Amino acid sequence: MAPPRYIELPEGLKPAGVSGSELLAYERSKASFDSKAMAEYIHGKEFLELQERILNILTSDPVFDKTSDYYYGRADKFRRAMLKDKRLAQLAAEHGWGQYEANVAEKLADLPGPMGLHKSMFLTTLYNQGSDEQRKVFYEPASKYEIIGCYAQTELGHGSNVQGIETTATWIAESQEWEIHSPTLTASKWWIGGLGRTADHAVVMAQLIINNKSYGPHPFVVAIRDVKTREMLPGRTIGDIGPKAGYNTTDNGFMLFEHVRIPHFNLLARFSKVEPETGKYLPPPNAKLAYGTLTWVRANIVRDASTVLMRAVTVAIRYCAVRRQFADRDAPKFGQDGKPLETQVLDYTMVQIRLFPILAQAFAFHYTSRFMFDLYEQNQANIESGDLSLLADTHASSSGLKSLTTLYASDAIEVCRKACGGHGYSMASGLPDQYANYLPNATWEGDSYMLSQQCTRYLFKTMRAIKGKGKVDKNITTDYMIRYLENKGETANIQFSGDLYDPLFFMRAFGHRAAYLTEQTLALRDDAKRSWNSLLVELYRCSKAHSQYLLVRNFGMAILKDDKLNSQPALRQIVQRIFLLWACHTMEEESADFLASGYITGKQFHLLGSKVQEIMAELRPNAVALVDSFAVPDYLLNSALGRSDGKVYEALFDFALREPLNSAKWNVDIHDMETTDFDSDLPRAKL
Amino acid sequence: MAPPRYIELPEGLKPAGVSGSELLAYERSKASFDSKAMAEYIHGKEFLELQERILNILTSDPVFDKTSDYYYGRADKFRRAMLKDKRLAQLAAEHGWGQYEANVAEKLADLPGPMGLHKSMFLTTLYNQGSDEQRKVFYEPASKYEIIGCYAQTELGHGSNVQGIETTATWIAESQEWEIHSPTLTASKWWIGGLGRTADHAVVMAQLIINNKSYGPHPFVVAIRDVKTREMLPGRTIGDIGPKAGYNTTDNGFMLFEHVRIPHFNLLARFSKVEPETGKYLPPPNAKLAYGTLTWVRANIVRDASTVLMRAVTVAIRYCAVRRQFADRDAPKFGQDGKPLETQVLDYTMVQIRLFPILAQAFAFHYTSRFMFDLYEQNQANIESGDLSLLADTHASSSGLKSLTTLYASDAIEVCRKACGGHGYSMASGLPDQYANYLPNATWEGDSYMLSQQCTRYLFKTMRAIKGKGKVDKNITTDYMIRYLENKGETANIQFSGDLYDPLFFMRAFGHRAAYLTEQTLALRDDAKRSWNSLLVELYRCSKAHSQYLLVRNFGMAILKDDKLNSQPALRQIVQRIFLLWACHTMEEESADFLASGYITGKQFHLLGSKVQEIMAELRPNAVALVDSFAVPDYLLNSALGRSDGKVYEALFDFALREPLNSAKWNVDIHDMETTDFDSDLPRAKL
Repeated sequence: MAPPRYIELPEGLKPAGVSGSELLAYERSKASFDSKAMAEYIHGKEFLELQERILNILTSDPVFDKTSDYYYGRADKFRRAMLKDKRLAQLAAEHGWGQYEANVAEKLADLPGPMGLHKSMFLTTLYNQGSDEQRKVFYEPASKYEIIGCYAQTELGHGSNVQGIETTATWIAESQEWEIHSPTLTASKWWIGGLGRTADHAVVMAQLIINNKSYGPHPFVVAIRDVKTREMLPGRTIGDIGPKAGYNTTDNGFMLFEHVRIPHFNLLARFSKVEPETGKYLPPPNAKLAYGTLTWVRANIVRDASTVLMRAVTVAIRYCAVRRQFADRDAPKFGQDGKPLETQVLDYTMVQIRLFPILAQAFAFHYTSRFMFDLYEQNQANIESGDLSLLADTHASSSGLKSLTTLYASDAIEVCRKACGGHGYSMASGLPDQYANYLPNATWEGDSYMLSQQCTRYLFKTMRAIKGKGKVDKNITTDYMIRYLENKGETANIQFSGDLYDPLFFMRAFGHRAAYLTEQTLALRDDAKRSWNSLLVELYRCSKAHSQYLLVRNFGMAILKDDKLNSQPALRQIVQRIFLLWACHTMEEESADFLASGYITGKQFHLLGSKVQEIMAELRPNAVALVDSFAVPDYLLNSALGRSDGKVYEALFDFALREPLNSAKWNVDIHDMETTDFDSDLPRAKL
Repeated sequence: MAPPRYIELPEGLKPAGVSGSELLAYERSKASFDSKAMAEYIHGKEFLELQERILNILTSDPVFDKTSDYYYGRADKFRRAMLKDKRLAQLAAEHGWGQYEANVAEKLADLPGPMGLHKSMFLTTLYNQGSDEQRKVFYEPASKYEIIGCYAQTELGHGSNVQGIETTATWIAESQEWEIHSPTLTASKWWIGGLGRTADHAVVMAQLIINNKSYGPHPFVVAIRDVKTREMLPGRTIGDIGPKAGYNTTDNGFMLFEHVRIPHFNLLARFSKVEPETGKYLPPPNAKLAYGTLTWVRANIVRDASTVLMRAVTVAIRYCAVRRQFADRDAPKFGQDGKPLETQVLDYTMVQIRLFPILAQAFAFHYTSRFMFDLYEQNQANIESGDLSLLADTHASSSGLKSLTTLYASDAIEVCRKACGGHGYSMASGLPDQYANYLPNATWEGDSYMLSQQCTRYLFKTMRAIKGKGKVDKNITTDYMIRYLENKGETANIQFSGDLYDPLFFMRAFGHRAAYLTEQTLALRDDAKRSWNSLLVELYRCSKAHSQYLLVRNFGMAILKDDKLNSQPALRQIVQRIFLLWACHTMEEESADFLASGYITGKQFHLLGSKVQEIMAELRPNAVALVDSFAVPDYLLNSALGRSDGKVYEALFDFALREPLNSAKWNVDIHDMETTDFDSDLPRAKL
């Protein structure tokens, strides 16, 4: 529920000059394409209709009202999120939503809740790793919310290094039980979403130990709280880990075990098993098959990175079209009415250079996430027919792309916020909250700096195989590496900025660079015998170069071959310009590599900069229509600055008038240590 | 007051392996220098003693206890900050603190409070711009907190462009009064610290209008709330603008005026005046003199940027020395006890490359802030003797440096946070709060992207003057520009990484680059007649290059000429390595410029990278001792990860156990929309 307006404004006041609504209408009128057609091209008609349908359901239900969220303290935030998760579960049942519809609703509601991990990792793990019987006993009640679970892997002392977790599950032959135990303080489970206050069951990853021999981490189902009374069960110590930069609507928790016994049955046994009678460990058939799921998860992360950029840049571009500040130094200083003219902030090239590449990056990530989903499906089909040849390439690329896109997206939200100037700092802009909640993406599912090593390890292997003339699978990576080795002396054939237009040029250039860096770094490892650790910086650069190649390639291929795009000239033209902006800008940003290897000259470097300026000017009239085509609903933006109606200043005022601090008067006498915010609407901690 | 521990831990649990305390002790034992001596070199003995003395006062007073802060909602945070400001005022009186001591206390208490702007901008403006009589009427009671004020300049529609503010102060000849008025919604004062709930007076910047003629923004003292009842006075509409990303302990406010009359006396009249009888406007003698204060403010901002880096990197480096994760690929996999060995995260070069340059940057900013204070004093002395020759150079450099250092520092905090992995995301790390509160620095006192134009405008002017062979003042800028013009074809004389050692080499290289970029960009403006707006990106680069030159120069000069440093060989050696790391790393980061201009070759580019690796390995054993020498007290760090005793995991647990959410049980039945967190310590909003 929205808080009341605590203060009344004088009547009849309006923002000075042309209104935000008029400015956005004017911006939209200048577009060279239909933003609805573009939205359908990007998202598909089906998705847009679904989003609209679910949006109507959510916005007519008070549980999903977001008006108060930015004023709440943690306890109230958590309460709201709990109610939201309950109501979403009810709605899913009422409307017969599947996973896809539920996800769309979840994204729109945009409030990471205490049951989030129940719905994702807990259910998925029970289903994927549980035997048929375990699915019946655990998965079925969980899917009906009769038990609420979490996925307990990370520990206080162990995050990325899963093999190093300390929690043990020791086989007790006599009673055919597992004993779950936390030998140290650092063995405590930590960061587990939904564990702190909500879950009554957990999938616990623990070192499986039989006769003093460890078989590595395995998943066990452990009851942790009484389903009725919500009391912790004996031998478990559980709680919330305290406030975080974001995600405070989720109760990330800790958990310690003191010799907790669970039945043999509770080891999830679809793959690895232990014979209850003999205590014999039966390993899984092929551990690599799990890579398939991982690729799917990461394709989702890359898609999310794209939508995150779309959301943030929508706010920034709309606001910068409404906001006017200073007059351009060269422009006339006064309008027809004699009043000083101020320039739309979006006209300043220093603002464009920060925002337009982000807009373009959203497209780049979009095409690559589509590519990853296609690859995932092709790979799953291959695996079923026994062909594992795509597995390694898919896995490596997904590691590199997860790393690059999450780091990029978190930085980009902050760039958008800064581009909104002072008002970007207000919670009303929506950007601080989006930023704080997105940040964990760069850490979870593999810390993005570390994960890049998996990608480069594969690039090394591939380069070695090609040079060793062994049998080499044909795939995207081997393609560009072989091409590089056959064209080592290649340089950019660019004389004028007009020569910068062909997607193939950029694909070759980025492929050449990725292969060049890999070859150079591999030489340091194999020939100069440098230690792995001393090379981490270079390894990171290889992974980044490979991932950027993939982004260029997939975006470029759309320009060259996407029939849906090429059959709509108005769309094709603008997307092609966006590709060029993005490719030139990325090449300029990474130009040290291209310059140092001699691939481009200093003069060509300057051409890239000029081309970027040239395309920014071309894109400027289309900027607002482009973010419209991202189709991010106002409800999701939850931003005074990004509103599609441009009523920025009215919305900022409304936000201010409802601030509960405005319900109190304060005693400012420095000799009196009483605050006397009596009769106010303010909560007061009992601490 | 600290909240209770809501949950009891099993007894006797300790973190696995070597404890954090032992690890930090080991790290300290490896140092090649005395961190106390280094602290004295950096901060001076006097400051360290003062900090210690004030620290003892604050930490023995419950008002300054920080234990609960991260759990509080906004209302409680604001209450705490109000009490803190009152108590600081009392302590200042009790202990006879001057401005300097009060500032040290303020920094340690680290809670931007509702009286912060009263103490800074309100008092300063009353004093500097008030006539002697106005000082008596306004400044004196304000300095005794008998009236509480704020500084109301920014408006909803106008931030950086002060000339564009809309609030009017119209001269009413009949009654010899000013009428203060807000003609539009966007004319509302906005973002004004302390205005929302606290201040009873304001310095209001408004367009001074006499007989329909505007003389631009001037400062007026306006009473806004009744000093006793705290009610808004008639014609004023005032409130808090709502929650922000940080700074929620300050009541940033808005204010609208409806034809409010104030006496003639209330225009602050030390410089501009209006004759009450005639209504004649008397302009100030020399507007440029205000640049002096601005330079001083910016020198403070650069010094703050340095201490911000010191604080953030102290947390990250200590934590990364305690945190162990994975084994180095080349290292032995098991220790003598047969258990797998994990590597200190700080040993990974990919972590070092993120943290060590920040540590080095803290030194660089430190030397440059000292340089700015010196320059400020020299300049003030010059001005008094009528010599304005340093004014423009000082002002331009301070603009560029403010821009560069604040953007760099805000990014760096976030780099430090990410380097702490998952736990960096916890509020317990201290970094999210530091980040959120530091961010406004990049926007206020001139948006950092826009401000850079002032610097480049001066660079253009200087380059034009030199080329035009007119009279040119001798200063740092003209020095490097003239050197460049006389040595245009210069290239780096570097063959081996060992050649990278001489501060003069880096000073020349960065000076050459700054002048080269200025010359190139100026040609686009003057010869190619490009519009100012189309050049903003290049203008920004010039300002950045100039500012980086100054940083290199000031750091390099310390290596060459600082007697205090050079008389202590152990300190000198390590600071010299830090300089080299920083210079090589900055040159590598900016290498596109050096490569494109032909100043360095691809081979030399690679030497920079090797040199960085080489010095990082040298610095590694000294890393913890170096952050110790920054002398940031644990009280200020307020970080479980950065504690000087290394008890990271124990502190994270303590933080979790006190989370008030742990005082409640929750109803998770999805069919029951009651949360039932009964009998808990949780506040509940009345919204």
